[in-house]
Amino acid sequence: MTIRAGIVGATGAVGQRLVQLLAPHPEFEIAAVTASEDSAGTPYRKAAKWRIDAPIPTDVGEMTVRETSPDAVPDDVAIVFSSLPSAVGERVEPQFCEAGYIVSSNSSNARRDPDVPLTVPEVNADHLGLLEVQRDERGWDGGLVKNPNCSTITFVPPLAALDDEFGLERVTVATLQAVSGAGYSGVTSMEILDNAIPHIGGEERKMETESRKLLGEFDGAEVHWHDAQVEASCNRIPTLDGHLENVWADTDEAVSIDGAATAMGEYPAVDLHSSPDQLIHVFEEPDRPQPRLDRTRENGMAITAGGPRETDTGLQFNCLAHNTLRGAAGASVLNGELLLERGYL
Amino acid sequence: MTIRAGIVGATGAVGQRLVQLLAPHPEFEIAAVTASEDSAGTPYRKAAKWRIDAPIPTDVGEMTVRETSPDAVPDDVAIVFSSLPSAVGERVEPQFCEAGYIVSSNSSNARRDPDVPLTVPEVNADHLGLLEVQRDERGWDGGLVKNPNCSTITFVPPLAALDDEFGLERVTVATLQAVSGAGYSGVTSMEILDNAIPHIGGEERKMETESRKLLGEFDGAEVHWHDAQVEASCNRIPTLDGHLENVWADTDEAVSIDGAATAMGEYPAVDLHSSPDQLIHVFEEPDRPQPRLDRTRENGMAITAGGPRETDTGLQFNCLAHNTLRGAAGASVLNGELLLERGYL
Amino acid sequence: MTIRAGIVGATGAVGQRLVQLLAPHPEFEIAAVTASEDSAGTPYRKAAKWRIDAPIPTDVGEMTVRETSPDAVPDDVAIVFSSLPSAVGERVEPQFCEAGYIVSSNSSNARRDPDVPLTVPEVNADHLGLLEVQRDERGWDGGLVKNPNCSTITFVPPLAALDDEFGLERVTVATLQAVSGAGYSGVTSMEILDNAIPHIGGEERKMETESRKLLGEFDGAEVHWHDAQVEASCNRIPTLDGHLENVWADTDEAVSIDGAATAMGEYPAVDLHSSPDQLIHVFEEPDRPQPRLDRTRENGMAITAGGPRETDTGLQFNCLAHNTLRGAAGASVLNGELLLERGYL
Amino acid sequence: MTIRAGIVGATGAVGQRLVQLLAPHPEFEIAAVTASEDSAGTPYRKAAKWRIDAPIPTDVGEMTVRETSPDAVPDDVAIVFSSLPSAVGERVEPQFCEAGYIVSSNSSNARRDPDVPLTVPEVNADHLGLLEVQRDERGWDGGLVKNPNCSTITFVPPLAALDDEFGLERVTVATLQAVSGAGYSGVTSMEILDNAIPHIGGEERKMETESRKLLGEFDGAEVHWHDAQVEASCNRIPTLDGHLENVWADTDEAVSIDGAATAMGEYPAVDLHSSPDQLIHVFEEPDRPQPRLDRTRENGMAITAGGPRETDTGLQFNCLAHNTLRGAAGASVLNGELLLERGYL
Repeated sequence: MTIRAGIVGATGAVGQRLVQLLAPHPEFEIAAVTASEDSAGTPYRKAAKWRIDAPIPTDVGEMTVRETSPDAVPDDVAIVFSSLPSAVGERVEPQFCEAGYIVSSNSSNARRDPDVPLTVPEVNADHLGLLEVQRDERGWDGGLVKNPNCSTITFVPPLAALDDEFGLERVTVATLQAVSGAGYSGVTSMEILDNAIPHIGGEERKMETESRKLLGEFDGAEVHWHDAQVEASCNRIPTLDGHLENVWADTDEAVSIDGAATAMGEYPAVDLHSSPDQLIHVFEEPDRPQPRLDRTRENGMAITAGGPRETDTGLQFNCLAHNTLRGAAGASVLNGELLLERGYL
Repeated sequence: MTIRAGIVGATGAVGQRLVQLLAPHPEFEIAAVTASEDSAGTPYRKAAKWRIDAPIPTDVGEMTVRETSPDAVPDDVAIVFSSLPSAVGERVEPQFCEAGYIVSSNSSNARRDPDVPLTVPEVNADHLGLLEVQRDERGWDGGLVKNPNCSTITFVPPLAALDDEFGLERVTVATLQAVSGAGYSGVTSMEILDNAIPHIGGEERKMETESRKLLGEFDGAEVHWHDAQVEASCNRIPTLDGHLENVWADTDEAVSIDGAATAMGEYPAVDLHSSPDQLIHVFEEPDRPQPRLDRTRENGMAITAGGPRETDTGLQFNCLAHNTLRGAAGASVLNGELLLERGYL
Repeated sequence: MTIRAGIVGATGAVGQRLVQLLAPHPEFEIAAVTASEDSAGTPYRKAAKWRIDAPIPTDVGEMTVRETSPDAVPDDVAIVFSSLPSAVGERVEPQFCEAGYIVSSNSSNARRDPDVPLTVPEVNADHLGLLEVQRDERGWDGGLVKNPNCSTITFVPPLAALDDEFGLERVTVATLQAVSGAGYSGVTSMEILDNAIPHIGGEERKMETESRKLLGEFDGAEVHWHDAQVEASCNRIPTLDGHLENVWADTDEAVSIDGAATAMGEYPAVDLHSSPDQLIHVFEEPDRPQPRLDRTRENGMAITAGGPRETDTGLQFNCLAHNTLRGAAGASVLNGELLLERGYL
Repeated sequence: MTIRAGIVGATGAVGQRLVQLLAPHPEFEIAAVTASEDSAGTPYRKAAKWRIDAPIPTDVGEMTVRETSPDAVPDDVAIVFSSLPSAVGERVEPQFCEAGYIVSSNSSNARRDPDVPLTVPEVNADHLGLLEVQRDERGWDGGLVKNPNCSTITFVPPLAALDDEFGLERVTVATLQAVSGAGYSGVTSMEILDNAIPHIGGEERKMETESRKLLGEFDGAEVHWHDAQVEASCNRIPTLDGHLENVWADTDEAVSIDGAATAMGEYPAVDLHSSPDQLIHVFEEPDRPQPRLDRTRENGMAITAGGPRETDTGLQFNCLAHNTLRGAAGASVLNGELLLERGYL
């Protein structure tokens, strides 16, 4: 028995990845795909300008795209995976929750709301408990669960590993982000060929806040954000997939390179269908991870880390994740699997 | 009357830029070009695989390449511009100094030697006084002057501006460096297309040490390095020219965005032939500077900066310089002009 | 005395190049810039997302953008340079002509109209005589002159040189075109990074027809198109500027490599402000021309050619031109200069 | 029972692909890896600078690299896969053949030798019969089989399909080739970023001759080359993998678009482990195939084609293949499988 699932915002760059991941998924079955009004009524094959280097799953290609509205989605759908522009998500996601659907969302709206769980299953699965608070407060039958921004997912697991062992005080991070993170038309070729862009609107703030919520403590009623000082600088570079990040972590206790590698490499994995066998792969080579070589580790769901150096105040290191798999579509699917395991579906 | 100049290591990526800058220079005249033994005896046009998007200066193209040795260079040459691999520079540059030549060098050897001036004319021209110490200690008639690494030149002028006004305590920097910084064959296309490399061997250490020497105080006998904690993470990205850097500066006194912009924008220029009218151009747009758009400001000799944000402990900003012009060949030429102005030629 | 000029469609990729070329032009003076309704009323600096690696000319930056309509342009403007989307050009350009303006247009509409001169000054300046026919037929006080498509301009001058000496029978051409040819937002980064696109809608047909009109004979009343068979295949590749083309020319008479090089290298230049000293630069090196190295020859107005090989039926060679300078904005400006020289302004 | 296989030249770009393909192969077992003298004696993991975006197969990573000599390879090895620089292949491959090994080689030496089979299993498997001629003439116990150049493999299958149905008279081809075709260090980043190179030394000639041998007839004693006139122009562009080609085929009989699509799409496949289910995938979309999207079809072993247009004299179309899989390592492995099926192993 598989759970019937909808994908809203299915034609975008992340939506296509959701299709790619869910089509062969053993636990979920794609029952509906939605997009903007213009595309509604046309076959998915026509509506999506497919950019993935593997053919469109045949069944989904023939599905008729629906409008993005609870009325347009069959009642037997239990979970909706959402990857909508945030302004649309803000309007539409609550409608789905009210109509009784569980929404696992990659959209950036509502991530910092106190009663919305923002989860990475390996890091803070317990925050899912916020769903009860949410249902109480909002009177929903369904519920809204968020995964963080792609650049945030990349550095939070290594930071969680360090925080557990050494205690985080301050985090400084510079990112080198791939163009797919901006969506299909987000970055023009004239903007990025032979170039880099040292600012991504809103991204710095997302990393600085979402990381503190993810690393925070849930006491059964609310999440107490981590009080580390986090400062991010986000850059777009001419890579297709894979966000690379340079991180400086100032810690309460001194960190050795070996201690850091052990903490990261042994950080616990979880037993969900899409989760990697080992969450963080630690390289010995100083010039790894690299986007093109390492982004597809464990089907693009592993975090890779390397280049550790001790500093006067803690540790400097690099980390990488596939931004549209581990950092977006895969993150939403993983949250869906967690919701299923925990009995919410 | 122009000063007769030699270029040693004239066929490499920086050597070609030296040719490009010195051929039309009003104060210097290219009297000799040297390269490795293989190329000696052939016309420069054949020896150099010319990669600059402007034709080879005709006269230089026809010059016969000489061996890299003082004996091979005419006696009436007064200054030698050097851009040699550091192992070669370490061996050969002292021979030229001993033979009475003034050497303005971009090679990375000897930069941290206590009696070798490491100068950026706008920042620490007074360090040139070390030449007297050097001549005393080494018994040379000539003398050796260095410019710093390309990634170091990029962030030191903005830091100097901040240090003067607010006092530097700690500097964290992540770089996005162009491939030309590694020389003509330094980075293969398979390494860098759709990729980034989060480590450049030796580069982090150069930034961390050379910056402190440049920002140090010369008391007439020695340079006292600045005691700020500097931590660098160096990345190679698929850009041709222009190093972009994300900097966090923790300061003694609080920095406002306006205060920082003023300090940088009004940092004094110098009156040398190749120096820009304004050393640091400060952008208001948050997504600037960008390598492709901004690297050629003032003939590639200006530093550009932007994206300032106040942090709890100081200022975060971005800066950029053309790595083979302001960061290498142009830096050596500028030091040559300073040596001329100060009467060393 | 300078001629007052308007630029319609001034904010696009080619429009920005027109601004760059006309701002310092000794014969023209920018009197008005227009764009779409959204931008009208705002300073050009704000309306144009400036992508050229040199600052916006200050005066133009401060100009208020006008609507694209003859009523919005001052009466003392004598010539209008147009770089509009073809659908807009088709509607608006006749309005300007009717209102008495001479229009030098880069837009693709009307290029094949029998009474519209399609000119490259060095190749077929005499076709300008069609203006009399046009005025007779359309009753215009002004007049419409077109330059060809960027990919067409690249290969027509070398073909004209060969046609004069050896007679053309058949031409086969494959292009490697830069992204700027599609305008600022024409090609997304996800489409082109690590990729090539083997078709550019409409471009093949433009090359196949415009080339035959350009190489045709004007008998005082009409242009008789050249009867060569022309077949084009157009590819987009990840370069910023510069269209490179592989050409096979089957000729009436046998062509030697030397004969071809002489015919191209000695093809007559013209004496206009923006025209190059030598129209076609012929390389001896078999791997030239290359976009990055050769596109800016003679301020981006020269054609470069190389790699000639004799075939059983003629000659194979490569050629290159800067697509937004020689191939678009520079082509329109050059036609403007020709119009001035011939007394139309 | 698997066949024990050696890989000579195992550390290069194609050698790494051979390791990737043969490590999990059900018919072959990697028994030895060789490289240049410098690497002999070190573990493969250290000797190879692994550039593939999947981890090194563990067993092979631990193997000790041997010298490239028959003496260094175990006697029970039956087949040697070779991807050596041609100068090395020319010297070493005959030594292996003389020592009794069957050599399936991707190296460019000896491809045009009259007694050396140059085969693509789907196109001309019968040419393998040349092995008998070869053994007679050279007195070898082993034997040498070649696959063609990567750019040749790409366009020969579609041409074979057209030749069978319509008869080929003349072929004109322009290529857009990926950097991996030149090997790991073959193209520097400074050469190719924002650039294209319109000549690849020797490549044009390979395409022009190898294609005619492949399409030729084997009469039991020798191969009569096809007499079509073939003219190639080869370009390097900034893509990592996948050669895209624009082809014009002049044919004896008129070709319709549908007829061409049918001839290509129904061109017979073969039943070997690595061969694709369908040899040529024909796209309806005019802008396909594209390197990034289509190079990995059927594990990188399918040819893709599209963009057909009728011309006055035949057909114009585009085709694509993964140059290091279908075009090199996969081609050698496929020839190995053919040799096994035909009883040579």
